[in-house]
Amino acid sequence: MISKSEIALLKSLRLNKYRKIEKKFLVEGKNIVCEAIKKDSIIVKIFYTSKFNYQNDELVNLLKNKYESTEISEKEMNKISPTKSPSGIAALCNLPPKKLNAKTNTSWLYLDCVSDPGNLGTLLRSACWFGINQVALSKDSVDPYNPKVVRSGMGAHFYLSIQVKTNIDFFDKNKFTILGGDINNGEKIKLKTFKKNWVLVLGNEAHGISDIVKEKIDKKISIKKLGAGDSLNVSTSGSILMYLLTKDQ
Amino acid sequence: MISKSEIALLKSLRLNKYRKIEKKFLVEGKNIVCEAIKKDSIIVKIFYTSKFNYQNDELVNLLKNKYESTEISEKEMNKISPTKSPSGIAALCNLPPKKLNAKTNTSWLYLDCVSDPGNLGTLLRSACWFGINQVALSKDSVDPYNPKVVRSGMGAHFYLSIQVKTNIDFFDKNKFTILGGDINNGEKIKLKTFKKNWVLVLGNEAHGISDIVKEKIDKKISIKKLGAGDSLNVSTSGSILMYLLTKDQ
Repeated sequence: MISKSEIALLKSLRLNKYRKIEKKFLVEGKNIVCEAIKKDSIIVKIFYTSKFNYQNDELVNLLKNKYESTEISEKEMNKISPTKSPSGIAALCNLPPKKLNAKTNTSWLYLDCVSDPGNLGTLLRSACWFGINQVALSKDSVDPYNPKVVRSGMGAHFYLSIQVKTNIDFFDKNKFTILGGDINNGEKIKLKTFKKNWVLVLGNEAHGISDIVKEKIDKKISIKKLGAGDSLNVSTSGSILMYLLTKDQ
Repeated sequence: MISKSEIALLKSLRLNKYRKIEKKFLVEGKNIVCEAIKKDSIIVKIFYTSKFNYQNDELVNLLKNKYESTEISEKEMNKISPTKSPSGIAALCNLPPKKLNAKTNTSWLYLDCVSDPGNLGTLLRSACWFGINQVALSKDSVDPYNPKVVRSGMGAHFYLSIQVKTNIDFFDKNKFTILGGDINNGEKIKLKTFKKNWVLVLGNEAHGISDIVKEKIDKKISIKKLGAGDSLNVSTSGSILMYLLTKDQ
């Protein structure tokens, strides 16, 4: 059973405004819920349909023992889920606390006005894969807990420390090497040059890195074009640069 | 002026069925139309709004001299364009002829049931950037002239030879080295090993490479996980592998 007011609350979490007020976000789909389980304190409540229960009884039993869990109808799942074809399981999660910690010997990803939710999610997924566990976003970037970002992040949110509304000055003051992904004007990455204490800056899909951030960049890096085209997708170029910056660890 | 029947025809091109019958597809947006211009024979007709003309008069004059061009209203542009916020210019293009040519000394990308239009478009854009000019798709892949694929391809369609409904046997018979992108079980790419005459196979977003294609793979290659996560996005991992396979050319 789920009340009308609870449905309304869960639906409201599609908007940043309500995620901030409630300090919660909703994740949907078996794979992402399975990643969320690994971080105990994050899950508040589980919702599943009887069909999902039937097809995944072991998982649902495990979840029922560990968390407050509610079986809801397909119709109710359709109402609370932000996806068109919900897979039958969703978890209400706590937003992680916000704190900006300039640990030394770390590597960061800084996203300057990245606006496409799919691109942001894909970049978080890649950062997670390559062990770049600190991600900071400029104030005009898309919200990382937007349902489309969460979906394409595929669970990366539960491994990363994600800071929003971060000013590039933070990295400047804390003596990080600021690397700017610049598709046409950068240099080839020289490995071994950047050990730790670096931040990789990626810019907006249409306009690249903003002027105010560009001023702070210590080194531009890029990926050589061998064929044709104006640019690479930002999540593609960002992921290739993350691969290159971490491969010799 | 544009007739009702022409609007209906242009709208119909959102569906694969009608693209096949008409042997045409529609591209939308200034950047993609500018890429299409470089391939003279592909454009059939241009449509633009008076606002676009006012903001881009040099470009529109150039197009009017070269192609059959029609100014249409914003409302008509909204009807013919597959995007929610059309930029004010669209071009009707011929579908390229289908021919499968096994030139030696070439590199190919083979997509086995890649189903997300954004992923396919991003992969085409990366293939184009890295000079991998031949792309073949298995019969269950999303159609490469689907409007969402064209949009995320950002003009790559005009540089690549794209073959649909291709059987992996084609590469086997023509003595290509078949490389399978396998996120968890592959080997690290050893550069210099694969000069030319290779095909990089990428699989479906959820299910990976199909069993029938797996049998034909000569070597599995992968990207080492340094952090956490189940996998990388297929367009990300595919692009990193394309980067690695072409970087020493």
